[in-house]
Amino acid sequence: MDAGEFRRLWNEIAPIGRAETGGYVRFSWTEADLALRAWFQAQSERRGLRCEEDRNGNLYAWWDAEKELVVDPDAPHPEGAILTGSHFDSVPHGGAYDGPLGIVAAFLAVDQLRADGAKPKRPIGIAAFTEEEGGRFGVPCLGSRLMAGVIEPNRARALTDPGGITLAEAMSAAGAAPDLLGPDPERLERLAAFIELHIEQGRALDGGESAVAVASAIWPHGRWRVTFTGEADHAGTTRLPDRRDPMLTFAFAVLAARKEARLAGGVATVGRVEVEPNATNAIAATVTAWLDARAPDDAVLSEILTGFESKVSERAGRDGTSVRIVPESETPIVDFDAALRDRIAALLGGAPVLPTAAGHDAGVLSAHVPTAMLFVRNPTGVSHAPGEAASDDDCAAGVDALAAVLRDLAC
Amino acid sequence: MDAGEFRRLWNEIAPIGRAETGGYVRFSWTEADLALRAWFQAQSERRGLRCEEDRNGNLYAWWDAEKELVVDPDAPHPEGAILTGSHFDSVPHGGAYDGPLGIVAAFLAVDQLRADGAKPKRPIGIAAFTEEEGGRFGVPCLGSRLMAGVIEPNRARALTDPGGITLAEAMSAAGAAPDLLGPDPERLERLAAFIELHIEQGRALDGGESAVAVASAIWPHGRWRVTFTGEADHAGTTRLPDRRDPMLTFAFAVLAARKEARLAGGVATVGRVEVEPNATNAIAATVTAWLDARAPDDAVLSEILTGFESKVSERAGRDGTSVRIVPESETPIVDFDAALRDRIAALLGGAPVLPTAAGHDAGVLSAHVPTAMLFVRNPTGVSHAPGEAASDDDCAAGVDALAAVLRDLAC
Repeated sequence: MDAGEFRRLWNEIAPIGRAETGGYVRFSWTEADLALRAWFQAQSERRGLRCEEDRNGNLYAWWDAEKELVVDPDAPHPEGAILTGSHFDSVPHGGAYDGPLGIVAAFLAVDQLRADGAKPKRPIGIAAFTEEEGGRFGVPCLGSRLMAGVIEPNRARALTDPGGITLAEAMSAAGAAPDLLGPDPERLERLAAFIELHIEQGRALDGGESAVAVASAIWPHGRWRVTFTGEADHAGTTRLPDRRDPMLTFAFAVLAARKEARLAGGVATVGRVEVEPNATNAIAATVTAWLDARAPDDAVLSEILTGFESKVSERAGRDGTSVRIVPESETPIVDFDAALRDRIAALLGGAPVLPTAAGHDAGVLSAHVPTAMLFVRNPTGVSHAPGEAASDDDCAAGVDALAAVLRDLAC
Repeated sequence: MDAGEFRRLWNEIAPIGRAETGGYVRFSWTEADLALRAWFQAQSERRGLRCEEDRNGNLYAWWDAEKELVVDPDAPHPEGAILTGSHFDSVPHGGAYDGPLGIVAAFLAVDQLRADGAKPKRPIGIAAFTEEEGGRFGVPCLGSRLMAGVIEPNRARALTDPGGITLAEAMSAAGAAPDLLGPDPERLERLAAFIELHIEQGRALDGGESAVAVASAIWPHGRWRVTFTGEADHAGTTRLPDRRDPMLTFAFAVLAARKEARLAGGVATVGRVEVEPNATNAIAATVTAWLDARAPDDAVLSEILTGFESKVSERAGRDGTSVRIVPESETPIVDFDAALRDRIAALLGGAPVLPTAAGHDAGVLSAHVPTAMLFVRNPTGVSHAPGEAASDDDCAAGVDALAAVLRDLAC
């Protein structure tokens, strides 16, 4: 498709939730999110698609009017729908493409199929999942996790944002119904496949010939809350040998996590820290840090954690502090459906097949539905920050690839 | 004096402002502070001392009735008063002794002098300075700084507590007159000496023979705001070599500050940290940390800073980050009056002479009045936290020492 055509639709959402940093703040159930949801509904209506919201706040635009479908009763799972789409929400000051590209590309792919006179044999749907980033309520892929029944509705309703507002309160304020939250197995059973198009989060495609890749797997990954406890004391008068300063153990742990990840061949990051009492002239009483670690396979991830734990415990002993490591989420490796992956890679003329170290709704749904992901080239490799980038030409190539996949699977 | 006698008076204030943590929350101009001020006035009245409040909210109990003084016209500065005392206010959840011990000991020292039939040749005063800790309005030694004219009254009136209440509002609500705040040179000129008794904030006396020490100096100290800037990115998908993670440079800096301080013979602490965007799954964009460093002399402090700056800059180069160090406050060394210090140390039978790394009203007043400090042994060494401790015997020994000093200087 034409890059200009992509740009025209893209520009409709570009100003929504844009911060002065150039990044996006599009948290679920906020004003920006509601504007994007209204835009989604308007796009559905413009195309005569059936727009609906499921019990978990996820939106769908369905191309499934009976008169338009030519159901093939001999096809496997003939009523099964092909779902595509992604999410609108962002991390704080995230990039423009992570999520929304998959939704905008899906509407354009439907346009392209219709312009080509394609006749779907099964429903095609476009999804916008809520709270994929966990940027407001802390749990990533919340909308798809609720649908798949892998998070308790009561726990989800009680999740709070940094201002103390619960998900239930935020949904009610936005006119949604939090009491309906919960598993939706019938909806999952109606799906024959889920295809998520997403901007690449790395630079593997940069400098190569392909603008689009197919996902092989999602790296196993997890989050651990690490609490370092020492003893608050006077920053001036306490002699160095008398101190039990948890900031030292924490600092060592940041460097140790990086080193263990480098040696094992994974990644590890500390991006979030909270200090008590956080006073300039007092030795900290506690430092709480969150470790995010990911690796190509479960054994390497476990090696990183084991090394981290042993090095940090040893250091805590020397600092007179204590360390407690509590897993907050652990996701084993997700291998996407191999047959679907090979079929798509061949269809796209031998597109590169890449693993990703990021979690996605596609990863959650892959336990229930044959699932695949397409990645669109990101020359900066930046993700979750304003520097994330994709050319209009590459985005248009992504639309072409997605349209080809939908035609192949649904028409 | 008898430890039981100390304990009886001490118990009168022990419940005031005590929190469930076992620490004290005695912020200036709060209910706890007003209760302590009322207690001070009652103690003055009980002893027939003249109680007054100066224009800056500092309280005094004067033993200066003409019929009681035997002024020696040949003495140097014969009308000059000997002032002792300390402060009532605490840091959040601070210990019991930091401040109040100096006031309670002063009342008991006066009792002891009177019981011994001492006849002062000059006035003896007991002071309770306001907001020494800066625990409510942020500026330490606020009462003595105002008196000495080293803080603008307008700036002081506009200082706010964490709830947004200004000092002026807090004083008015407590029935005080904030419009009178300002320098009080006449009051300073009437002083011949100021002696502050204070709990030790460290463990130098622990295990030794002396319960009481004399201060030599207040270490030079300062606060520096250190900003580490990198590039926000995805914690999973960004390859380690592509990262510019300021958390690594910050972690290195925490350990470097400690090492430089240890090698040079000072102390350095990072107790306060702020991270942007502070998200679990994003590499930080910036980390801001506050470095508190103190040393026995200005050259050592400067050596710590220089070493810190050079090591951290070098590391930032390797991490692809940048570092900016901005001083927020720098206080040069305070040497207490040498003649007074030597006289007191000899009087107390060769008491140890110790420097301190903490600021005090005595440090502010020492620019205007010959000033000395006495320290009472603190076996835990803990300060600014509930673990701060002194035995009743050692406190009673502190009263004896203070009484001896007052007798020597005033009688």
